[in-house]
Amino acid sequence: MSDKLDRVAGNGLINRRHLLKVGLGGLGSVLATNALSADAGLKLQIPQWSQQPGPGTSAYGSPSPFTGQIQRMAGTPNPIYPGGGASRSPLQHLQGTITPNSLHFERHHSGVPAINPAQHKLVINGLVDQPLMFSYEDLLKYPMVSKTYFLECSGNSGTLFGDTPVDGSVQSMHGLVSCAQWTGILLSTLLDEAGIKTQAKWVAAVGADGASMGRSVPLDKALDDVMIALYQNGEPIRPEQGYPMRLFVPGWEGNISVKWLTQLKLTRQASQFRDETSKYTDTMADRRSLQFTFPMGAKSLITSPSGQMSLPQKGVYKVTGIAWSGAGSIKKVEVSADAGRSWADATIESPQSDKALVRFSIAWQWDGGGAVLQSRATDSAGNVQPSRNAILAERGLISFYHYHGVQSWGINSAGEIKNVYA
Amino acid sequence: MSDKLDRVAGNGLINRRHLLKVGLGGLGSVLATNALSADAGLKLQIPQWSQQPGPGTSAYGSPSPFTGQIQRMAGTPNPIYPGGGASRSPLQHLQGTITPNSLHFERHHSGVPAINPAQHKLVINGLVDQPLMFSYEDLLKYPMVSKTYFLECSGNSGTLFGDTPVDGSVQSMHGLVSCAQWTGILLSTLLDEAGIKTQAKWVAAVGADGASMGRSVPLDKALDDVMIALYQNGEPIRPEQGYPMRLFVPGWEGNISVKWLTQLKLTRQASQFRDETSKYTDTMADRRSLQFTFPMGAKSLITSPSGQMSLPQKGVYKVTGIAWSGAGSIKKVEVSADAGRSWADATIESPQSDKALVRFSIAWQWDGGGAVLQSRATDSAGNVQPSRNAILAERGLISFYHYHGVQSWGINSAGEIKNVYA
Repeated sequence: MSDKLDRVAGNGLINRRHLLKVGLGGLGSVLATNALSADAGLKLQIPQWSQQPGPGTSAYGSPSPFTGQIQRMAGTPNPIYPGGGASRSPLQHLQGTITPNSLHFERHHSGVPAINPAQHKLVINGLVDQPLMFSYEDLLKYPMVSKTYFLECSGNSGTLFGDTPVDGSVQSMHGLVSCAQWTGILLSTLLDEAGIKTQAKWVAAVGADGASMGRSVPLDKALDDVMIALYQNGEPIRPEQGYPMRLFVPGWEGNISVKWLTQLKLTRQASQFRDETSKYTDTMADRRSLQFTFPMGAKSLITSPSGQMSLPQKGVYKVTGIAWSGAGSIKKVEVSADAGRSWADATIESPQSDKALVRFSIAWQWDGGGAVLQSRATDSAGNVQPSRNAILAERGLISFYHYHGVQSWGINSAGEIKNVYA
Repeated sequence: MSDKLDRVAGNGLINRRHLLKVGLGGLGSVLATNALSADAGLKLQIPQWSQQPGPGTSAYGSPSPFTGQIQRMAGTPNPIYPGGGASRSPLQHLQGTITPNSLHFERHHSGVPAINPAQHKLVINGLVDQPLMFSYEDLLKYPMVSKTYFLECSGNSGTLFGDTPVDGSVQSMHGLVSCAQWTGILLSTLLDEAGIKTQAKWVAAVGADGASMGRSVPLDKALDDVMIALYQNGEPIRPEQGYPMRLFVPGWEGNISVKWLTQLKLTRQASQFRDETSKYTDTMADRRSLQFTFPMGAKSLITSPSGQMSLPQKGVYKVTGIAWSGAGSIKKVEVSADAGRSWADATIESPQSDKALVRFSIAWQWDGGGAVLQSRATDSAGNVQPSRNAILAERGLISFYHYHGVQSWGINSAGEIKNVYA
């Protein structure tokens, strides 16, 4: 059988049509019996659920109990950091490119405030002609835009700066990225109404959480595609995403999309908030630290097969994953099964839009030997996702944020899959 | 003030910029005080939720308790029709174009079966070269596609065939339409694997619910864009949407997208299932009934302001709504405030993709007098949403399915909004 395979790169990457013609047969996953022929009719046992009516409609639906393992993963709560921490999206269980609201990753600096929208205010002040204060109801009256954007914490994948590869899953290592349709008011609309003084160069955004999380946004970005997001996948944004409103800064590190937004102050200089000095800076190999490194790099991940999974037997597998870039849309995703010595173009299975996830897949025949699966994204600006070694050469091992290097999943002859450095 | 308004159609439809410059001021919704000037600093009371940490992360998130009214609306259960019925999406509370999974409309013929995916099978048989049987795990191995599509029950809006306008909300009258990113396997992929005999012209699709809901799909549509959907907005499809799998037939009446799909049988003729004979046919004015009227027409709805809402005072309002077509993408939405005598183009606030919802808006100055708000969609095939009278001329008053005429919201001098025939 394998003599006839149309190989597209080394160590078993093959044409997608083989998933259909030989792959699934090889995995024993397609059954056919004479009892199922057109003439003989269907001789299947009728399951219990087909023999009785089920429950009717519901007011607000829930997932099937058979998908109960599809949950966000959080670290252990830290008593000296109440409410702080993160939870990670179960990337290995998701498909397509939208993250359902209940599974969007979280990152909190002082937990989730229980905000009553009737008492919440958004103030725009500082270097404006006219300071303004908005209620939640006020904001609902404005024109809005709806866009599908990824959001990624700049600490996502940071464990790969470590000198020893951790034994993690795609969720535990990379689950701080999600994607949703965000609907809200362009910030330029509100700033135009307030009137911007010529000295203004930055916008200080502050949240209403206990941490008073604040970040500085350059004015030119604020006037480009930044929005006050009020809806997430069609419904009001969730408490853990900033209900009743958050700043949304497309393509930039998640921390700057300030949740529970309550103030926007126009300033001459960046405000040097705690989260842009003590944290969210990038330390280079020479121990200098870069500040305000906002955009997220071109990046991709194979979500299946991935760390802590295993391959049951030799045969043809679908390799699938996600890719995104803060600099535009994804133009190409390549996959390697031989640790980067050869690459083949994957198929993009979803729309390719600005600063949004895409889904890719490719067929791979595992011959039972060792392999290293990698993926590499190229974006519309021409940026190519770098290797881990290329990032380390620039950043060293004491950096933490903005890791977007190639992820390597090593597979041994037992079919076990582990995060490796290759 | 109103002398300076840029009017775009009769009875108060105005340029969108007026929402910003005079509209919101006119509604008293923007406040500014000297206390908020840049020098004086911010003198707001600090709310309780900003003075303490909140709870941390969660495994599967929930909406804010302050949005508890955003629910699907179901009719009264009927004891002789156990599990049967529908629930409607709260269109007046949603924004953007994606319907969150928990709020997607439902229509069941015998309730929601509690299917264990490990015991569920999908059989392809009939006029095929090789009958095939698939487990859920088998299907996960296939290449998939991800597309955003609306789904609409052909009974949606059927109440407008009645000779007296009901006093309903946009949810109660029109809530049987939703939109999601659906991910699954193109049916053409599986049929190619089974091999189609030349005599085959239809595909009979049957569900595993207690009703054994079945529908016939013409083979050419089946080979076009029909998919076996396994994921909805990124996560496994919900029980009420067919978990673990449903047929998804883009742009066609919802009933044909058979849920809990368990059999696809290729046949020479349509199978004349119960749901394509006793139901889901269109009765004309002369009492002939048309069968297999699959595509949903070009349609739009103003979701706010809409039935059973009220306008608190004279002033400028944002008029917003949704539009879609089973024949392609939406190219234009027009809005009228004078019962169709004059029309203005609305702004499209979302992407315009094939067989998906779009979101539109326009600014309107209510002068305190009577008004009738209408919207009218034009799709990429050139179809223009018809008036109610045009549909009645063809279909009479005893029809029920496929109503896609213009919806009229009447507003009286008290600001009360009601469904009217205009």
